[in-house]
Amino acid sequence: MAERADALRASIAELADLHAALRVLQYDQQTAMPPAGAPARGEAIATLARLEHERLTSDELAELIAAADRDDPVVRVLARDAEKARRVPAELVAAMARAGVEGQAAWQVARPASDFAAVRPHLERHVELHREYAACFADEVSEPYDALLDDYEPGMSTDEVRAAFAPLRVRLPQLVAQAAEHAAPPLAGTFPIAAQRAVVGALLARVGFDPGSWVLGESAHPFSSKVHAGDNRITTRYAEDNLDSIPSALHEFGHGLYEAQIAPALRRTPADDGASMALHESQSRLWEVFVGGSLAFWRGAWPLMSVGLGGAIEGVTPERFVAAIGGVRPSLIRVEADPVSYPLHIVLRFDLELALISGELAVADLPAAWNDGMAALLGVTVPDDRRGVLQDVHWPSGSFGYFPTYALGTVLAAQIWAAAREALPDLDERIEAGDLAPLRDWLGERIHRHGRTLEPAELIRSALGTGLDAGPYLAFAERRAGGGER
Amino acid sequence: MAERADALRASIAELADLHAALRVLQYDQQTAMPPAGAPARGEAIATLARLEHERLTSDELAELIAAADRDDPVVRVLARDAEKARRVPAELVAAMARAGVEGQAAWQVARPASDFAAVRPHLERHVELHREYAACFADEVSEPYDALLDDYEPGMSTDEVRAAFAPLRVRLPQLVAQAAEHAAPPLAGTFPIAAQRAVVGALLARVGFDPGSWVLGESAHPFSSKVHAGDNRITTRYAEDNLDSIPSALHEFGHGLYEAQIAPALRRTPADDGASMALHESQSRLWEVFVGGSLAFWRGAWPLMSVGLGGAIEGVTPERFVAAIGGVRPSLIRVEADPVSYPLHIVLRFDLELALISGELAVADLPAAWNDGMAALLGVTVPDDRRGVLQDVHWPSGSFGYFPTYALGTVLAAQIWAAAREALPDLDERIEAGDLAPLRDWLGERIHRHGRTLEPAELIRSALGTGLDAGPYLAFAERRAGGGER
Repeated sequence: MAERADALRASIAELADLHAALRVLQYDQQTAMPPAGAPARGEAIATLARLEHERLTSDELAELIAAADRDDPVVRVLARDAEKARRVPAELVAAMARAGVEGQAAWQVARPASDFAAVRPHLERHVELHREYAACFADEVSEPYDALLDDYEPGMSTDEVRAAFAPLRVRLPQLVAQAAEHAAPPLAGTFPIAAQRAVVGALLARVGFDPGSWVLGESAHPFSSKVHAGDNRITTRYAEDNLDSIPSALHEFGHGLYEAQIAPALRRTPADDGASMALHESQSRLWEVFVGGSLAFWRGAWPLMSVGLGGAIEGVTPERFVAAIGGVRPSLIRVEADPVSYPLHIVLRFDLELALISGELAVADLPAAWNDGMAALLGVTVPDDRRGVLQDVHWPSGSFGYFPTYALGTVLAAQIWAAAREALPDLDERIEAGDLAPLRDWLGERIHRHGRTLEPAELIRSALGTGLDAGPYLAFAERRAGGGER
Repeated sequence: MAERADALRASIAELADLHAALRVLQYDQQTAMPPAGAPARGEAIATLARLEHERLTSDELAELIAAADRDDPVVRVLARDAEKARRVPAELVAAMARAGVEGQAAWQVARPASDFAAVRPHLERHVELHREYAACFADEVSEPYDALLDDYEPGMSTDEVRAAFAPLRVRLPQLVAQAAEHAAPPLAGTFPIAAQRAVVGALLARVGFDPGSWVLGESAHPFSSKVHAGDNRITTRYAEDNLDSIPSALHEFGHGLYEAQIAPALRRTPADDGASMALHESQSRLWEVFVGGSLAFWRGAWPLMSVGLGGAIEGVTPERFVAAIGGVRPSLIRVEADPVSYPLHIVLRFDLELALISGELAVADLPAAWNDGMAALLGVTVPDDRRGVLQDVHWPSGSFGYFPTYALGTVLAAQIWAAAREALPDLDERIEAGDLAPLRDWLGERIHRHGRTLEPAELIRSALGTGLDAGPYLAFAERRAGGGER
């Protein structure tokens, strides 16, 4: 009995170590690796992923799990991962991985050329493989898309997403149209990159970035990754003609803080991770949009900005800065969208994913469906596929079921922010004073420390005393669209 | 038969991928990881190293090797690695790894405090474990140290090292004493780090650093690592009060170039590595000391230095710079030693390692023996253990048998340099013109491309038409000590 428990602990630690190694390889790939290293890196990552999958689906592990104590939350998380992994044939896993690499490579060439035809066969292959994948869970789900969603949002159904998106679909188009009339223009100017680096460092230190256990890197696409205990990585990117590096760094800080504050008892286990992608995104949005979009934060932090950026922001006030970063206007590109129009980009992707997986929409008809949807939801005309259906890497690389979590995260962030304000009545004063510890501690206690030991729905209910609710988000959207208080 | 060959190829690739992942984890540890990540990183590295060792020593692999074609040089290299690994019990491997980590941790605290007593029990444990390790090869070697040496310098015997060191032991102390009288002083000044970074980048580009497949990083201890095909990493370090970043970067470039020029056919195999540590060090020394210590190189590269460093080197000529970096003087610290006194630091370590392993010297008596040796060989008085026996990480971390390769590499570098000059009569003109391709190509053809497919002695003979010979090195040392031509 004790021997079996030791063997299970050893297996859990080995799986965690393989996963940590994979994350280091991926971080390094995006921040340090030279271009010629890509093929060998792909091989090394594939080998580690295969070893991890072999171990997770092995009969030895299944026996150890069967004999283990299901009251142990780590065992429950591992059992769920193993049972899901065992349902999918190794050949299908390999085929999906290969198709993802090939599709992403095709997209990298096709996007700048706006060449949908080059990506189309890859998307067709992905749709086919994802239907096969969903079929592995046919006895457990009520529609195929449920199986795809479950990989990112455990336990959530497609119907629950539909319900969550229903009010957004109705109200947001009106708000976006109304807001566009009086949105503040973005800041224009030249912002030297060395100065931005210094300011981003100082702002992150203000919110709680600790150089003893965090790293700030630079990459073409900002991301965050706790590679393992004691090592939180976040990245940002810099461009001289805007200050996007700042909200981007605060966004990734929110992701990083979630993982940094998971209970130490869960380290080196599969529970040492966020509960779901929507919960993860709720944390990044909370720091980017609600803390980093508040006048209180920028009033307090303004001296850092003035010292760091000097002449580049001469004459700009915190009020003007907050209005500039909070402007609501319809746009073509999801990653550049404000948080009011953003969910509409997601609603469209969700509709199209559902239609592709169900077979109602053929891949060949996807660009037209995209362009129609953008016109209907956001009132914009898509000039080419580069700025349309080809803008995101997700579909070409074979991610289906992920997109909804972005909008759910934004909705959740508003709920969590409302609850935090209620729990911490002097929150604005604290934020202005640069004392973010009460907010960090409250988030840690309510959400972060649990890791994956609670299912997302359970965690939301335990943290907020209620389920997913678009109310607080819509109230925020109304205020933002009206140019109101921050 | 074809099935077995496929299985062998798959095993070889898997081992190479695990090894590549380990190198990425180690590179990241030294260049990016925050301090709090150390324990988890240690666990991840130990797990991957264990998986690699399990696979290398598995019965399945032994059977595949037994059935494979020994005329295939990759199979020979793999067979050698596997047969060596299978001789050592897994518990001993684990005990040595653990003892290394513990000893290194103890040393990190003990060195600044000059506290030999804190390191002593670790060294005693290392000596004991290394004797056990050597005993695993008792039937193959004529003395235990042979087994330790073989891990770094395959096929070389302790007696061959003794013979190689004999002339150095006699002649170098005289040369060092004689040179010290008229050594040029090092350059003094303040050299801004941003300027050094730019100059190092420009100098590396001049010798052949290609940003498409190389990375220049920064770390406390400079090192090089081809993490895998298409991805050569080298690091340097910068201090404002000296220009050591430059020779250090050229040194690591030499290591990197060796691995970059291994035949592409050997990628993702155990033969995709340098033939031995001495051969590796010969390449780093060649670029650092012979190219990077030559007047021809600095005459050609001086405009880069002037533009980059500006006022910080005002009035300095290439002649003065070369004299400054080539000064010979006895010193306490190995890593700061010039290439004439350097081998004496190694001769001492070799003598002491031999005496420790044979039991003639007790660890308790090591500091006194160290201090006596430094006085006898270099004529210097060691003021404390921090600048004496505790200066290097090698022994505390459990590396015995490695040190000799440093001096052998310097000796080999002089032989290879002499051969290159003979083969490329216009080498000086080419170097001055910044055309390093002929030298790179000659080294690639003679040495690099073979990887580990030739044993070191075989490779040296095939490249130079002769064996290891201290003659060219001593001739160089005579010139340097006399302040003569570069």
